[in-house]
Amino acid sequence: MKSYLFTPGPTPVPERVMLRMAAPIIHHREKAFETIFEEVREGLRYLFQTEQEVLTLTSSGTGAMEAAITNLFSKGDEVLVVRAGKFGERWGELAKVWGISPVYLDFPWGEPADPARIAEHLTTQPSIKGVLIQASETSTGVMHPIREIAEITSKRNDVVLVVDGITSVGVFEMPMDAWGIDVVITGSQKALMLPPGLAFISLSEKAWKMVNSSTSRHYYFDLKKHLAAAKRNQTPYTPAITLILGLHEVLTMLKTEGLQNVFARHHRLAEATREAVKAMGLSLFAKSSPSDALTTVLVPKGVDGLALKKTFLNLYGITVAGGQEQIKGRVIRIAHLGYFDQLDMFQVIAGLEMSLYKLGFPVELGSGLKVLEEKLA
Amino acid sequence: MKSYLFTPGPTPVPERVMLRMAAPIIHHREKAFETIFEEVREGLRYLFQTEQEVLTLTSSGTGAMEAAITNLFSKGDEVLVVRAGKFGERWGELAKVWGISPVYLDFPWGEPADPARIAEHLTTQPSIKGVLIQASETSTGVMHPIREIAEITSKRNDVVLVVDGITSVGVFEMPMDAWGIDVVITGSQKALMLPPGLAFISLSEKAWKMVNSSTSRHYYFDLKKHLAAAKRNQTPYTPAITLILGLHEVLTMLKTEGLQNVFARHHRLAEATREAVKAMGLSLFAKSSPSDALTTVLVPKGVDGLALKKTFLNLYGITVAGGQEQIKGRVIRIAHLGYFDQLDMFQVIAGLEMSLYKLGFPVELGSGLKVLEEKLA
Repeated sequence: MKSYLFTPGPTPVPERVMLRMAAPIIHHREKAFETIFEEVREGLRYLFQTEQEVLTLTSSGTGAMEAAITNLFSKGDEVLVVRAGKFGERWGELAKVWGISPVYLDFPWGEPADPARIAEHLTTQPSIKGVLIQASETSTGVMHPIREIAEITSKRNDVVLVVDGITSVGVFEMPMDAWGIDVVITGSQKALMLPPGLAFISLSEKAWKMVNSSTSRHYYFDLKKHLAAAKRNQTPYTPAITLILGLHEVLTMLKTEGLQNVFARHHRLAEATREAVKAMGLSLFAKSSPSDALTTVLVPKGVDGLALKKTFLNLYGITVAGGQEQIKGRVIRIAHLGYFDQLDMFQVIAGLEMSLYKLGFPVELGSGLKVLEEKLA
Repeated sequence: MKSYLFTPGPTPVPERVMLRMAAPIIHHREKAFETIFEEVREGLRYLFQTEQEVLTLTSSGTGAMEAAITNLFSKGDEVLVVRAGKFGERWGELAKVWGISPVYLDFPWGEPADPARIAEHLTTQPSIKGVLIQASETSTGVMHPIREIAEITSKRNDVVLVVDGITSVGVFEMPMDAWGIDVVITGSQKALMLPPGLAFISLSEKAWKMVNSSTSRHYYFDLKKHLAAAKRNQTPYTPAITLILGLHEVLTMLKTEGLQNVFARHHRLAEATREAVKAMGLSLFAKSSPSDALTTVLVPKGVDGLALKKTFLNLYGITVAGGQEQIKGRVIRIAHLGYFDQLDMFQVIAGLEMSLYKLGFPVELGSGLKVLEEKLA
């Protein structure tokens, strides 16, 4: 049986990227690497839609989240943590480890954040120095209104907006400079179609000013050191060289397709999938503002969510993501971000229909596929 | 022209490892990954010669060095930093960033540390909680006497020996448990024949006890969290999956060859290279105790070291390492660690002879090659 990966990270790696990474390794302190890294830096600025430097860290996305915390804030600072899923929680955990007080602003899992309530908090608690949020909450499949939130934070000189863009950068429109976002983070194994191992972070001028007054300790994640090295087309410590070569290939692919076309492709696949799922009589977990990165499908009554995930894998070779923490077993999550094209969606919708059928759920076979095709035709 | 990499990291990646890493990516939270990671954990214990868990971090070796500092020590602690090259210096920098006072014990670049002086320091400064050292100092090509130093530190319950084994693990004999070393660190791009992007760290029971009393902050490099995840064949954050698949392949190769045979191979290549270099009328930078990881050759009088490195690359396609910091331009460094076999050494010795010849140095062509062959025949 063939294997199909439909998880929102890691996502499938294009064949030409795999082969690029399988070439004999080169040394990172040599000219050949620096020439490539210069083009990578340029490509990352295009991807982030920024004039600022985008720093490349050898770590998972969590490493870049920690870098944001320790480079921007200091012990005793207060930050507003928008919590509406698993990854919102992570911002709070990270802040606490570093002696920074998280003020939680909770929204139910499956709902987007309300910018008005963020504005309210910033007014009543003027000591808050940062708003920490996900653009696309991967655990729920909801997109938060980053543009509206950035309008609020850009009016304040003493507050930065820190966006975990791990499943939004390269997925949908989120121009860092134009919207006035202060910090954007992403990882390699999502829209960038690479294996995990690299994380990226970019800071606005306002954010770099805050870095200068932070007193937190850091060495491996010292962003000033990373910035100085990047200007010389280098990294301060040995980087994951093969992943950077793969990144070079990926950035060429994204530029060739064109960022707006990439966004449109993700939207088209997500929209068609959402309609197909509804046509099968199922509901989406995201009540409004669904992210184009992934579709989170509520497991219907009478079906065991864990059994559904297993059926996908055992009968059809498809790996999808399940629910995490409080929604474990209650949803399955289907990715659209990265190296996916329209015909891929027929595989996963067929897998969903057949898996439900095998589990005895009264699904009309072909009902989802028909709508998917109508939407994509 | 073909390209030849003779640097002490990154080192060449075997073809079968490249291909293993080029296979379609798998998801790290699935059974298929966990089955592989369980074997990887076992292989790493074999490599480190320990019964302890060896933790796999997605970072460069510097990340693992920082993990050692922040997990073992606390602000205000004192540590003895053995400084006899560039990487000794890094221990001191790291300690200072974390508010830990480094007490430096300096030895000239090119000479091994003297265990008696370490013993003396530990007696006169009983507040010292750790000895930080390299087993093989990559910047000078010298091997430090870890066994003798471990004999001293194992007598003390309140002192740990922390060894940067980045160019010693898998290169020469350094059994962690048998010698009583408390912390051993290595990286993927050295004897492990992988691209950079993974680092490894293992702690003795004494070291884990010290972890419990440390008050330093950390999140991404929280080793207790890594240990708990490893016991479930997992990592706390998304790991560099493809590198771990490559590692699985590499550990199989090392086990098949046998660790003692791997050490013997490195020693044989290093010994023959050293003799060949001397036969050409050149001197080694390491006055005694040369490491089998690499040979550091003094650039002879009248030859420009930077021109020599360039000639290697431009005329013969060979990348060797030059000297760093205070010995920049004064040495070239030739690797033996990793995926090297006896015939590879003929390439680099021929490259050295011809490069010197081209630069007008009166080398007798074939003098090094002859001795190399005599030693290897």
